[in-house]
Amino acid sequence: MKRDIDLDLKQRAQQVLPNGVYGHESTLLLPETYPQFFSKAEGAYLWDADGNKYLDFMCAYGPNLLGYADPRVNEVAIAQLAKGDAMTGPSPAMVELAETMTDMVSHADWAMFCKNGTDATTMAKTIARAQTGKRIILVAAGAYHGAAPWCTPMPAGVIDEDRAYIQTYDYNSVESLEAAVKTAGDDLAGIFATPFKHDAFTDQALPDPAYAKRARELCDQTGAMLIVDDIRAGFRLARDCSWELIGVRPDLSTWGKSFANGLPISALLGSDRAREGAAAIYATGSFWFSAVPMVAALKTLQILRESDYLEHMLALGTQLRGGLQDAAASTGIGFRQTGPVQMPLFLFDEDPDFRVGFAWSEAMLRRGIYVHPWHNMFLCQAMTEADIAQTIAAAREAFVEVKDNRAALEPHPVVAAMFSAMAAE
Amino acid sequence: MKRDIDLDLKQRAQQVLPNGVYGHESTLLLPETYPQFFSKAEGAYLWDADGNKYLDFMCAYGPNLLGYADPRVNEVAIAQLAKGDAMTGPSPAMVELAETMTDMVSHADWAMFCKNGTDATTMAKTIARAQTGKRIILVAAGAYHGAAPWCTPMPAGVIDEDRAYIQTYDYNSVESLEAAVKTAGDDLAGIFATPFKHDAFTDQALPDPAYAKRARELCDQTGAMLIVDDIRAGFRLARDCSWELIGVRPDLSTWGKSFANGLPISALLGSDRAREGAAAIYATGSFWFSAVPMVAALKTLQILRESDYLEHMLALGTQLRGGLQDAAASTGIGFRQTGPVQMPLFLFDEDPDFRVGFAWSEAMLRRGIYVHPWHNMFLCQAMTEADIAQTIAAAREAFVEVKDNRAALEPHPVVAAMFSAMAAE
Repeated sequence: MKRDIDLDLKQRAQQVLPNGVYGHESTLLLPETYPQFFSKAEGAYLWDADGNKYLDFMCAYGPNLLGYADPRVNEVAIAQLAKGDAMTGPSPAMVELAETMTDMVSHADWAMFCKNGTDATTMAKTIARAQTGKRIILVAAGAYHGAAPWCTPMPAGVIDEDRAYIQTYDYNSVESLEAAVKTAGDDLAGIFATPFKHDAFTDQALPDPAYAKRARELCDQTGAMLIVDDIRAGFRLARDCSWELIGVRPDLSTWGKSFANGLPISALLGSDRAREGAAAIYATGSFWFSAVPMVAALKTLQILRESDYLEHMLALGTQLRGGLQDAAASTGIGFRQTGPVQMPLFLFDEDPDFRVGFAWSEAMLRRGIYVHPWHNMFLCQAMTEADIAQTIAAAREAFVEVKDNRAALEPHPVVAAMFSAMAAE
Repeated sequence: MKRDIDLDLKQRAQQVLPNGVYGHESTLLLPETYPQFFSKAEGAYLWDADGNKYLDFMCAYGPNLLGYADPRVNEVAIAQLAKGDAMTGPSPAMVELAETMTDMVSHADWAMFCKNGTDATTMAKTIARAQTGKRIILVAAGAYHGAAPWCTPMPAGVIDEDRAYIQTYDYNSVESLEAAVKTAGDDLAGIFATPFKHDAFTDQALPDPAYAKRARELCDQTGAMLIVDDIRAGFRLARDCSWELIGVRPDLSTWGKSFANGLPISALLGSDRAREGAAAIYATGSFWFSAVPMVAALKTLQILRESDYLEHMLALGTQLRGGLQDAAASTGIGFRQTGPVQMPLFLFDEDPDFRVGFAWSEAMLRRGIYVHPWHNMFLCQAMTEADIAQTIAAAREAFVEVKDNRAALEPHPVVAAMFSAMAAE
């Protein structure tokens, strides 16, 4: 693989970005050969700055749901760009989009649109407090709900007060949730839950319906708001809020990433139970009313309703899971696939510092498949059975390669430093 | 003016948005005849949902700097949309944009890109704390720095801890700033300042250089970070940080709204004095690495460097200020224009509940000129001398109309309720 342009860009980035590329798209915690910069994306494929092509199982960490640069979505976006994007007020598309999303999402009576997932989760927290007049917010330990000071996973620059009244429980544990609610006493404002456990660096877990139902009951009993953070999973598991699959309706749900197929928009949806609190808070942003992402969302949601995108991704995900399981088993390597098939995470047994996973991912990358060694991945509508078959064939070779080289593998220096820093805390 | 479509959309919005349109583009605190929804924007003009056309002095509350739907910017945005927008990593444009902005902005050694102005101000606060290991952040009383719980002007859902260690001083007062710094003792992390005083509902004020220089000195003495919040004014006053005009360089500056001419992107720029803190924090967003707004920013900034956009806006702003002053004087009405000429605010003497300003603004709206009765406005490059002459002619008629009807004017019910609620606090 050619790497000259990417390495040069990384050097330049070190000068003019504080630590190179920051945030979730930094390759600092990825195998050394992973490219940082990309020059093109189309359908299920991605080209790095040097022109190397990959079948991309990250889908921009979620936004690519139909396929990159989907012409159906881009056509309406381009037409709207000529008519008006950021204006002195919203376009009629804002009302149409709120009507569409409240129609599609069973629990929702109203919508607010914003830009980042963190905007939506922060508004949900604020609305829960405004609606209830209480302060304590429960979140599952280790869950990611954004990168503002109240929720960012890295504590630099965060003061204790930023996390005041944010308390934790263990995902999927009825007992732990009940204990946290009891501790909150009469000051419980809201309970956050991701639709399934999709924390980084660890096996994913589907939601235990007993836990989800108990969260709903506890909110009903205390008056607290139940908040499903569907930013990462929204519309990849269902054409509705993801917890409709287990029959539990939240008061608030947060959405982002994919519902405009990559155009920048996120949303907070709520039921009438939270409407008064939502009407009371003040939150806004320079581009929250822009028309282009709203018409892109209307078109994307129409395609979701009218196509078999979900059944197609489920079929491909099932094909992938079975094929990888067989390939790993035939090599005798301990390989775990967790989470919904359309949002898989791959981890290796007896791999505490991820050296096996990193080596396997690099072996996949060399074969033109972009997989992630510790973050959940994403399928998209543009993928085909042939793409999955190619992935399985590459994986088979990569499993053998890793097994043969296992004794020679070294841990990733930055990841190893991070884990030893965490262990020292 | 036709209003049927707008009124219908507002009714529909009441159902599916918590309180109709929320945030800074809500017309709740504007004259009753102001349209809420817009269907088209081109150059300096805006069309509401009913097709009424306005010369727009709000410029989308800032983003429209060159002219709506500028074909030079939209052309590169559309080309990039086909190549890739949100991808699994940034495009090379991210590095080019960081290089360009650190070249243009004298104090800046590095850049971080985000989506909302609030993202940039929140990162600035967090970086000031990470860099200094201290907690207290000084902001000017009444200044707007965004809509997260730590800074939103409306307190619903905000708890005391959200504002912990946020303390205030009076803008332009050396004495007040020194007293606040003294109170902060050895716990001062940073001082925020807007480049000029552009608070809503009150006269604007240019910065007193003695105040700005003292802020710099106090930061040098204490190790605190000086933060200029240039989100609203950036690149409308200078082709550099706005405080270059008075010779004061901050450690951090926040940017947004206009530097991609309406495409969604904001930025935090910093000097090497703040680099370590910036490298330590974790902040990110789903669309922060998207390529389309970055190429739009590169093209916009090129136009800013190569055109006379700034001198043109200054000339038009001067023409407007003189013309309105003459028109108001000839009517004998007390009319105040404050702030830089390219970002004016208009208020009326003896108008404590804004009824005169509201009536005059409505009279302008009926004449096809969209002005704001209590928020600063914005000129753009697409405006012409003829546009300004038309505005002055309309204003002359509107001054007469308001003077003749003054005795019959009523206060705006929502604004009156807001002021009496504030007075009761």
